[in-house]
Amino acid sequence: MNTITSHQNPKIKFLNLLKDKSRIRKKEQRFIIEGNREISLAISGGYHIEQLYYCSSIATKNELQLILDVIDNSIEVFEIPSEIYQKLAYRSTTEGVLAVAISKDLSIKNISLKTQNPLILVAESPEKPGNIGALLRTADAAQVDAVLIANPKTDIYNPNIIRSSVGCIFTNTIATGSTQEIIDFLKNNKINLYGAALQASVNYYTQNYTKPTAIIVGTEDKGLTDEWLKNTTQNIKIPMSGVIDSMNVSVAAGILIFEAKRQRDFIV
Amino acid sequence: MNTITSHQNPKIKFLNLLKDKSRIRKKEQRFIIEGNREISLAISGGYHIEQLYYCSSIATKNELQLILDVIDNSIEVFEIPSEIYQKLAYRSTTEGVLAVAISKDLSIKNISLKTQNPLILVAESPEKPGNIGALLRTADAAQVDAVLIANPKTDIYNPNIIRSSVGCIFTNTIATGSTQEIIDFLKNNKINLYGAALQASVNYYTQNYTKPTAIIVGTEDKGLTDEWLKNTTQNIKIPMSGVIDSMNVSVAAGILIFEAKRQRDFIV
Repeated sequence: MNTITSHQNPKIKFLNLLKDKSRIRKKEQRFIIEGNREISLAISGGYHIEQLYYCSSIATKNELQLILDVIDNSIEVFEIPSEIYQKLAYRSTTEGVLAVAISKDLSIKNISLKTQNPLILVAESPEKPGNIGALLRTADAAQVDAVLIANPKTDIYNPNIIRSSVGCIFTNTIATGSTQEIIDFLKNNKINLYGAALQASVNYYTQNYTKPTAIIVGTEDKGLTDEWLKNTTQNIKIPMSGVIDSMNVSVAAGILIFEAKRQRDFIV
Repeated sequence: MNTITSHQNPKIKFLNLLKDKSRIRKKEQRFIIEGNREISLAISGGYHIEQLYYCSSIATKNELQLILDVIDNSIEVFEIPSEIYQKLAYRSTTEGVLAVAISKDLSIKNISLKTQNPLILVAESPEKPGNIGALLRTADAAQVDAVLIANPKTDIYNPNIIRSSVGCIFTNTIATGSTQEIIDFLKNNKINLYGAALQASVNYYTQNYTKPTAIIVGTEDKGLTDEWLKNTTQNIKIPMSGVIDSMNVSVAAGILIFEAKRQRDFIV
């Protein structure tokens, strides 16, 4: 095990860039994972860990060993001092362990559906990391077959998304693509498209989601684009009777996905 | 109309304290509301506006007039320069208008239910302003009879809650109290208590929420306290089948509240 003590060490500079710059994450096809549990989930989810950094004043020997047990022997492990770790860590309750992982190519062309009767969550251009994290947590809890992100505006490997997803970024099948690519994928797989939109919509609970189903949500301010609206099987709405009638996008997605789960008796 | 130009003006200093310190908001029983729409909603919601501050380089005369039309003539109006306004404003898309409003006494003892068959959302010790805002948006959309916050950990007049509620803090009937006070209130009003908890729970969709109903959610990490668990009519759970099985609290509340709405045919 090597020890790094300087903020000026090229590896530390690179870690800071990976943390802060989505451009660098994209170019280098690398990202940072913080925390034992998240690193283990990433490994289970098929991610390759390249380097491990740990801070001995925060992580105990046992905690470090837990990670060393699941990573490849060939992975480089570095000890870093607390002041460097704290600057790299996003969480206030830090665990003293972080890893550099290799990004996956999340293109829609790479995914195949494993079930005959899929339930899929589609989000068009979600922006706020907290909302994306909440969507991924809902998708994990519902065990949907895939989460498809159309026209992504935010790098999915953003540390805030990883953190707010509490690791669900690694447990879901995720793919991204242009809206047209995702529409084509869904249509080629003969999946019914239910768009959350007011235009020509019916109440969400009147529809039957027991067949292959995609629930599609847009942004909070603009909703779904015309490209989606022209292609949905049926638009659905959540009836609202308040003064403001505005719902958080991850709450709306949760209500729709779990109505589908309820109709499917929580089996498929 | 008076003009203030100095950051050192006592009124500006007071505004900064109201913005940043929940202790000062509580002591002075005042809070800040930002934006035309929010101020109008607060007035509709029965809040008394004490002072209005506007920045002529951001707010147009028309925008200011919209607010002046709805506030009392006796309210003091001050013009402030952009650099003072920007420091006070929380939003990046500022509107150039903010108001000092008088807090309401939100004690549970002050509220009475207006319907025979209420649907109530209870949150115990919610902490994150974003989650509280999302809960209030869901509550507005579902037009619940009340949102009760048990053992609040965060000042409800926190600018981040006002902002993330997109004004729903002013459209809901909100009350706070100790867990015991809120349990007593619900029991005195013969309301069934459905606690979101795993202990001795049944699947949420097996229960009948068409009678007087309170849906109670706890914190994401600890769930509901024993005090609630000893008093619920029935504990309910959302079946989860993922790897992580953790859901954002406002998403879970949305699923439960809208299952109740569905059973009530979205009428009551």
